[in-house]
Amino acid sequence: MKAKSNDGDPHVELQHLFVDQLRDILWAEKQLVKALPKMAKAARDAKLKAAFTNHLGETENQVVRLGKIFTSLGLAVRAKKCPAMEGLLKEADELAEDYQDSSALDAALIAAAQKVEHYEIATYGTLRAFAECLGHTEAVKLLSATLLEESKADEALTGIALAQVNEEAAV
Amino acid sequence: MKAKSNDGDPHVELQHLFVDQLRDILWAEKQLVKALPKMAKAARDAKLKAAFTNHLGETENQVVRLGKIFTSLGLAVRAKKCPAMEGLLKEADELAEDYQDSSALDAALIAAAQKVEHYEIATYGTLRAFAECLGHTEAVKLLSATLLEESKADEALTGIALAQVNEEAAV
Repeated sequence: MKAKSNDGDPHVELQHLFVDQLRDILWAEKQLVKALPKMAKAARDAKLKAAFTNHLGETENQVVRLGKIFTSLGLAVRAKKCPAMEGLLKEADELAEDYQDSSALDAALIAAAQKVEHYEIATYGTLRAFAECLGHTEAVKLLSATLLEESKADEALTGIALAQVNEEAAV
Repeated sequence: MKAKSNDGDPHVELQHLFVDQLRDILWAEKQLVKALPKMAKAARDAKLKAAFTNHLGETENQVVRLGKIFTSLGLAVRAKKCPAMEGLLKEADELAEDYQDSSALDAALIAAAQKVEHYEIATYGTLRAFAECLGHTEAVKLLSATLLEESKADEALTGIALAQVNEEAAV
């Protein structure tokens, strides 16, 4: 969507970008809610299954938080298709299929999931910076909570990868 | 590409995933070499233009490093289409077009670039972990050098965003 003419007011224009990016990540999170159960089902390692299932609960809550941000801004909750997450999840699907019979399946699933987590970390970091600039204190609080969860989810995947999957695979 | 039958040897199967991911990031980096000059041209802030141009040089060198890794493994240098980077760069294109007349253009370009950087950080982090498991010491060294550059590129973008673009846009 082309940024609307708004008399060139920098505050209004940054607000437009902020809302645009909020809609983008809402679409991305909703797609992830559909993808995570498939990833949990595909995973072989019990801790990895649990990590995906746990992150599904967090992701559902992150969708709720995004709704609260839209509401706090007096806006309708609306998603916008995010080509990046579409590509990331396509890659995750391809890896899950290609490695379904391989002992490296879990390592492949973790690799795909960490790319998704990093996409979200970058997006939420940007959104929080915008919210701070724009003085949206409620949004800053909600975005900070999600950002912390995403970073922890990424660290948890690294922990599982390093402790189990990769070492097993390299035996 | 389906992971080939290899008698279930975990080392061979992780090696297959490692090479698969190397080919993925090689394609991604080559696309980025094409995209960065457009981003540098579109950017308004002089420091942001310089950051994109500087990262173009680094990215070209990262392509060379990937070539060295393939060679060190006795493999042909071959890329594989990466749907995630395709989506990330599509998003960057859309933002550049949508915000071309907006004072938030630089903020939009930085947002897109940081998503790309985080994709690369996640991928190189995974590749380095795989290389360590597999005992590919030359690859570990080369991947570590690139990972450091990607992290610094991301930090540099954050610095520009926080110091200039966002503050200006929020005046």
